[in-house]
Amino acid sequence: MKNINNSKLKIISLGGLGQIGMNMTAFEFEESIIVVDCGLAFPEDDMLGIDLVIPDVTYLKNNISKVKGFVITHGHEDHIGALPYILREINIPIYATKLTVGIIDKKLKEHNLLKTTKRKVIRHGQSINLGAFRIEFIKTNHSIADAAALAIYSPAGTVVHTGDFKVDYTPVFGDSIDLQRFGEIGKKGVLALLCESTNAERPGYTMSERTVGRTFEHLFLEHKNSRIIVATFASNVDRVQQIINTAYKYGRKVVVEGRSMVNIISTASELGYIQIPENTLIEIEQLKDYPDEQTVLITTGSQGESMAALSRMAANIHKKISIKPGDTVIFSSSPIPGNEKAVSKVINELSIKGAEVVFQDAHVSGHACQEEIKLIYSLVRPKYAIPIHGEYRHLKANASIAQSLGIPKDNIHIVSTGDVIEICDEYAKVVDHVQTGGILVDGLGVGDVGNIVLRDRQHLSEDGILIVVLTLEKYSNQLLAGPDIVSRGFVYVRESEGLMEGARHVVEDSIDYCLEKNVSDWGKIKTSIKDSLSDYLWKKTKRRPMILPIIMEV
Amino acid sequence: MKNINNSKLKIISLGGLGQIGMNMTAFEFEESIIVVDCGLAFPEDDMLGIDLVIPDVTYLKNNISKVKGFVITHGHEDHIGALPYILREINIPIYATKLTVGIIDKKLKEHNLLKTTKRKVIRHGQSINLGAFRIEFIKTNHSIADAAALAIYSPAGTVVHTGDFKVDYTPVFGDSIDLQRFGEIGKKGVLALLCESTNAERPGYTMSERTVGRTFEHLFLEHKNSRIIVATFASNVDRVQQIINTAYKYGRKVVVEGRSMVNIISTASELGYIQIPENTLIEIEQLKDYPDEQTVLITTGSQGESMAALSRMAANIHKKISIKPGDTVIFSSSPIPGNEKAVSKVINELSIKGAEVVFQDAHVSGHACQEEIKLIYSLVRPKYAIPIHGEYRHLKANASIAQSLGIPKDNIHIVSTGDVIEICDEYAKVVDHVQTGGILVDGLGVGDVGNIVLRDRQHLSEDGILIVVLTLEKYSNQLLAGPDIVSRGFVYVRESEGLMEGARHVVEDSIDYCLEKNVSDWGKIKTSIKDSLSDYLWKKTKRRPMILPIIMEV
Repeated sequence: MKNINNSKLKIISLGGLGQIGMNMTAFEFEESIIVVDCGLAFPEDDMLGIDLVIPDVTYLKNNISKVKGFVITHGHEDHIGALPYILREINIPIYATKLTVGIIDKKLKEHNLLKTTKRKVIRHGQSINLGAFRIEFIKTNHSIADAAALAIYSPAGTVVHTGDFKVDYTPVFGDSIDLQRFGEIGKKGVLALLCESTNAERPGYTMSERTVGRTFEHLFLEHKNSRIIVATFASNVDRVQQIINTAYKYGRKVVVEGRSMVNIISTASELGYIQIPENTLIEIEQLKDYPDEQTVLITTGSQGESMAALSRMAANIHKKISIKPGDTVIFSSSPIPGNEKAVSKVINELSIKGAEVVFQDAHVSGHACQEEIKLIYSLVRPKYAIPIHGEYRHLKANASIAQSLGIPKDNIHIVSTGDVIEICDEYAKVVDHVQTGGILVDGLGVGDVGNIVLRDRQHLSEDGILIVVLTLEKYSNQLLAGPDIVSRGFVYVRESEGLMEGARHVVEDSIDYCLEKNVSDWGKIKTSIKDSLSDYLWKKTKRRPMILPIIMEV
Repeated sequence: MKNINNSKLKIISLGGLGQIGMNMTAFEFEESIIVVDCGLAFPEDDMLGIDLVIPDVTYLKNNISKVKGFVITHGHEDHIGALPYILREINIPIYATKLTVGIIDKKLKEHNLLKTTKRKVIRHGQSINLGAFRIEFIKTNHSIADAAALAIYSPAGTVVHTGDFKVDYTPVFGDSIDLQRFGEIGKKGVLALLCESTNAERPGYTMSERTVGRTFEHLFLEHKNSRIIVATFASNVDRVQQIINTAYKYGRKVVVEGRSMVNIISTASELGYIQIPENTLIEIEQLKDYPDEQTVLITTGSQGESMAALSRMAANIHKKISIKPGDTVIFSSSPIPGNEKAVSKVINELSIKGAEVVFQDAHVSGHACQEEIKLIYSLVRPKYAIPIHGEYRHLKANASIAQSLGIPKDNIHIVSTGDVIEICDEYAKVVDHVQTGGILVDGLGVGDVGNIVLRDRQHLSEDGILIVVLTLEKYSNQLLAGPDIVSRGFVYVRESEGLMEGARHVVEDSIDYCLEKNVSDWGKIKTSIKDSLSDYLWKKTKRRPMILPIIMEV
């Protein structure tokens, strides 16, 4: 580290800037580091075969003696999903609100980490001391209950981190965002505001979650003669609450389907975050005991995920539910960018089976739009603005809002993942850059798939592979067997006999040439085979499959 | 064929129903078949390595003596793109309007098919006789000039095929859609209307192309001090015309960049479909001779296509243009479903380089919304409605519109690709199903990649491949060399030495076991290797790479 003053506050983004997911920000002051959130990202299209991506925490490992704990803002995957992987490398305590801890606990249990991990439930309004820091949890609203913003007090000043939030004056469960406290903290002076940027390009306000309840009322009335299936995000407990309320009102029984939804609803129910009237919830097996128009199914799969319950129903491979003509399927969600096609595929399949698909007005976002972002800036009135949570275009839109509110351009910092920003009354500036990045998780492997492997998978996926095997005699280098050519993912061989026959001749010629010239360097023989075969195939097919010559020696 | 009355009119969908692209519909009466459109589709996400998809025309080949010609509605890829491939199999004449023929000609020239293909230019209002059919071209509006609807007259009655259309009362080039003629034909009695469905889910009207011109006026005024880059669809000649008009008005020089755009604009310009004021168009090399604020770049890449000009500029790999802070980039397009993420990536890259990205109001659709579809139904008043062009959800929305206008439900037919619908005054019904489907084109190969190859590519892309090679002695079956294990796309081997070492042991054990038991059937040896190695890797990694044992014999 260069030029770093140890008695200054440093904010280090370890993920989540300029990308979706993998949110993680470290705060460092002298001998104390706290880490806000520990999210995963879902793989990009070119990360073939990868299950998920977690942040590189080399910096934390190298400074492990300083690291006091994880402070978690809410229970979404992009804020907690990497915990089971990261905790194996750095075992530090977790601080979060009740529902968030409940959801984390389920996860840790699955990964056998419950016993070895310290978790502590914090109430909104409560503060905890971690090293040089005091951290206060502030009530916010979001598309999952029990979300918190954080006021992070340090000797160098106060930083407010919004987490993911919206302003909902009429939330379905619990209180509205604690705007008074934002104002009070702001009045005392805030060094920096780290405000989320997801909807910073969208003008206006995000509607209250309660408005979706009214939509359900209309939809249930309109479709009173059919079975209703509602697909939504597993973690949106308030949404599920509203569907259940509407079902109860209209005398329908409710089935909850899809593993992640069952998990979260049971956690929420145990902890009192959802109220289910007696005799409303039934098992999926009991559905047949009720007429269609007296049932509601709440299910996962609103993003068209191929293995989720709704997609399996649509594709007719769900074990217990078939879509029937007359069913009404409500998407209580909007497609996350990148999922549009998958969602559309499910809609088509549902329509073909005769279901009526409803896609409008049954969803509101969980993120603040421009006017809400302005409100938070205006309550907190920070000296410095550091937009967080979003792609670059979103961070930039957030920065424009800050500037429009009078924060000087020089006091607004769009930083990149890995940037270390040093911050005090006099200045805020990027002073260093630490190692960060996405660690790819594939099956049980964490980090054993890197760029070379991904490039190979990409290459294999486009044109397949041809393997050329031959056996040479030791010393004499005489060809004893082969060349045999085996291909996978290239062409349907039976229909391309001429092509494969030609390929064999090209390889034979290439080997003959090498052996005649007494080339004994296997590397050179392989290169010669590769080049001549590649040329031949390109001319014949305009394709470049991977070519893998293997020489055996007897 | 069963139950088919040869003196009835038959409509056979050979593509384009329930999917995007690959539009092709055949009309058959006694000894005459005409084929409307010949489009390609772009590959689905799971068609790894595939360049494009064309319709299976086995039915046409089997009835080639009847097939009179292609009648093409307009020059978009999903209506003409398969011509160069299909013409090699069935060489029949092409009938289309002037610009459409111009665009087709460029394509045929590239494929060396210009000399061997008969093309005939037809004017709007003109009719042609093809066997038992008379086909009249009717003026419509669309996002490419010279689009036509078709009135297809047969002894069994008249069918109207809209092609792709919108109702633009104030088009940028040429006349408005010939609504009078639709009315006149309708008044005489129309058996069936085949109306496109792309925007059938959208209420209201599609705005006139001219409204985009007004948006450009505002944007050029607002950004008068910066270079302006506009990305749009290569084939939207009217859009390019409006950008050029605005550029000319504000004294800016214009560069057109991107191969497909240069191609179409040059064709349109030669044929008089675009008017470029003198001294307005400059070469890309001349850009440096003008101040930024006196230049406009019109470019391809509005869909985030990775090889298109705008994407290369954004990624800093364009040879001649770099994005600079202060540039204004206008997306005059909306993302086609499935391209949202790619577009967002380009926007982020442009933003990072300091460009201001404008994404709103600079585009209108080329397809009719609900009110326009109602208008066409009301003018044509067909006995039967057969929605075309779109995914199932769109066809269904179109059917709902038809029903809302009083067409009896039994007279509305949502058919699938391959369905043969027999139609006359008394009835319209599906009487048969012919072979159809997507033929995959990969490089020069047409149809040599099928499901097995795709499944292999999918498998390879997810977990890579392990190749196990060994050499056995003839007769004795003694192991002479190997087993060698080579992997690609599986793990980064240097970091997984233990795993690979273990794999070798597992394979050795498996071979030893087989040889000890005197198993001489290579198939069995391979299966044993595959199974034991697969089990081992699943236990260790929870992955299932492709395993390919190869045995050589010396």
